[in-house]
Amino acid sequence: MTDIFKSSKVAYLGPIGTWSNFAAEKYFGKTENLFPFSDFRQIFQYTETGKVDYAIVPIENSIEGDVSPIFDELTLSPLKICGELILSVNHCLASKRSLKKIRVVYSHPQALAQCRQWLNTYLPEATRRETSSTSKASKKAKSSFLGKKAAITTEISAQQNQLKIHHRNIQDIPKNYTRFVILSLKSRESEEHTHISLMISIPHQAGSLASCLEIFKKYKISLTKITSRPSRKEKWNYIFFIDLKGKLKEEKIVKALEEIKEKSNSLKILGSF
Amino acid sequence: MTDIFKSSKVAYLGPIGTWSNFAAEKYFGKTENLFPFSDFRQIFQYTETGKVDYAIVPIENSIEGDVSPIFDELTLSPLKICGELILSVNHCLASKRSLKKIRVVYSHPQALAQCRQWLNTYLPEATRRETSSTSKASKKAKSSFLGKKAAITTEISAQQNQLKIHHRNIQDIPKNYTRFVILSLKSRESEEHTHISLMISIPHQAGSLASCLEIFKKYKISLTKITSRPSRKEKWNYIFFIDLKGKLKEEKIVKALEEIKEKSNSLKILGSF
Repeated sequence: MTDIFKSSKVAYLGPIGTWSNFAAEKYFGKTENLFPFSDFRQIFQYTETGKVDYAIVPIENSIEGDVSPIFDELTLSPLKICGELILSVNHCLASKRSLKKIRVVYSHPQALAQCRQWLNTYLPEATRRETSSTSKASKKAKSSFLGKKAAITTEISAQQNQLKIHHRNIQDIPKNYTRFVILSLKSRESEEHTHISLMISIPHQAGSLASCLEIFKKYKISLTKITSRPSRKEKWNYIFFIDLKGKLKEEKIVKALEEIKEKSNSLKILGSF
Repeated sequence: MTDIFKSSKVAYLGPIGTWSNFAAEKYFGKTENLFPFSDFRQIFQYTETGKVDYAIVPIENSIEGDVSPIFDELTLSPLKICGELILSVNHCLASKRSLKKIRVVYSHPQALAQCRQWLNTYLPEATRRETSSTSKASKKAKSSFLGKKAAITTEISAQQNQLKIHHRNIQDIPKNYTRFVILSLKSRESEEHTHISLMISIPHQAGSLASCLEIFKKYKISLTKITSRPSRKEKWNYIFFIDLKGKLKEEKIVKALEEIKEKSNSLKILGSF
């Protein structure tokens, strides 16, 4: 894939050594054009204003679920989904000294959540502290001369910070995947895309979600994901995000989307991948 | 309500001064039997083993959405939902010195998320740091002699920590509510309850969610909420949590639940409120 993207600038959630950094290198190649940002808002801003060509952001983890801020950003953003990457994610527990000395475990909230059961079992007394990235967690552990601070982090980041790796694959379910989406301001619809992402706002009345889903069922369209977020307009009112199998130009998709439009308050095509 | 609960022990997410503490006092009265815990896992453990009679936990916020760890705990827990409380939540920005001196803003991740737009507009340069509670954020701000650290916190907590309140109601949507549920090991079904909470696991095939929702539509049962969480068993497979209007003994509810049972892999009644 590297060739197509050779001169493209790409934004990801830094710093260097995070899972997002890995994902960016895997999708776009190890180029000099990968730029780390400190939060999602900045990533969206730089991509929306054309300062970078693409953004790669985590949208869902197979254990921990949705990365909610991404869905909220997508609600208002002009960016389109144009690709996806699924990364197998293995968490390590690392610190400077022995396991017994650990009193505090640092990591990104998603990583702490993915390793909840392991921590409850093996380090029930340790305090859990959140950091903005797994890389920062490694730095915290590195700074602890007595080895009281540990990090849940990547193997590479542990090595870079001269930490001992006590346990590998400590996430609650050994097979742990994070799904990233690639975003761009330009529409990059492709013949190769097999999935479509939608955002639907439906009337606040009995049976309205059922009515929308019946349309997909009628056309035998498979939904691969459905999730909801608060609409932020009215209390306890939701927006639905749906991924489905199909191509935007397929006849049954065109028909289904026409009918959904009539039943819903609004329908936004977030892109295809 | 105080009378019924007079001698009941109640677990909530502490420390004293958090929104959960407010919620506990509002629902159970200001008794000596409210016990603060430092994380959700502990709250569930103490309630599941009968060391306390009730737990009160935040399950959803009208801006920020679901409190995911609670849904994950409910999946495996024997605890039943037996009540709800909706609390109006107003966030304040507070620090020791002037607004201009602020370089870092501390708060609970949910509060930071609820105030995202305000922070982007008024303190775009300030770093955001997560704390385990809004009370802890106040303590961070108190410890900053030069006033570089600010907290997003409750009015009372700001006052208790001698902080200046610079702005009130800074959440992205002025009307901000958090919904708490009350949990208990004993089933406490009541004639007064108007809603039922369910957890449904459905087959991983096209149209299966639509088939379930059609049943509710057929019996004219209103759903007030539907949300999904990863099943933690199989990748990209989900469990659905549904709240609906009705009583467990009502004929149409009994019939609908029978039919849902046939169409789903599993159906768990989480309780009523």
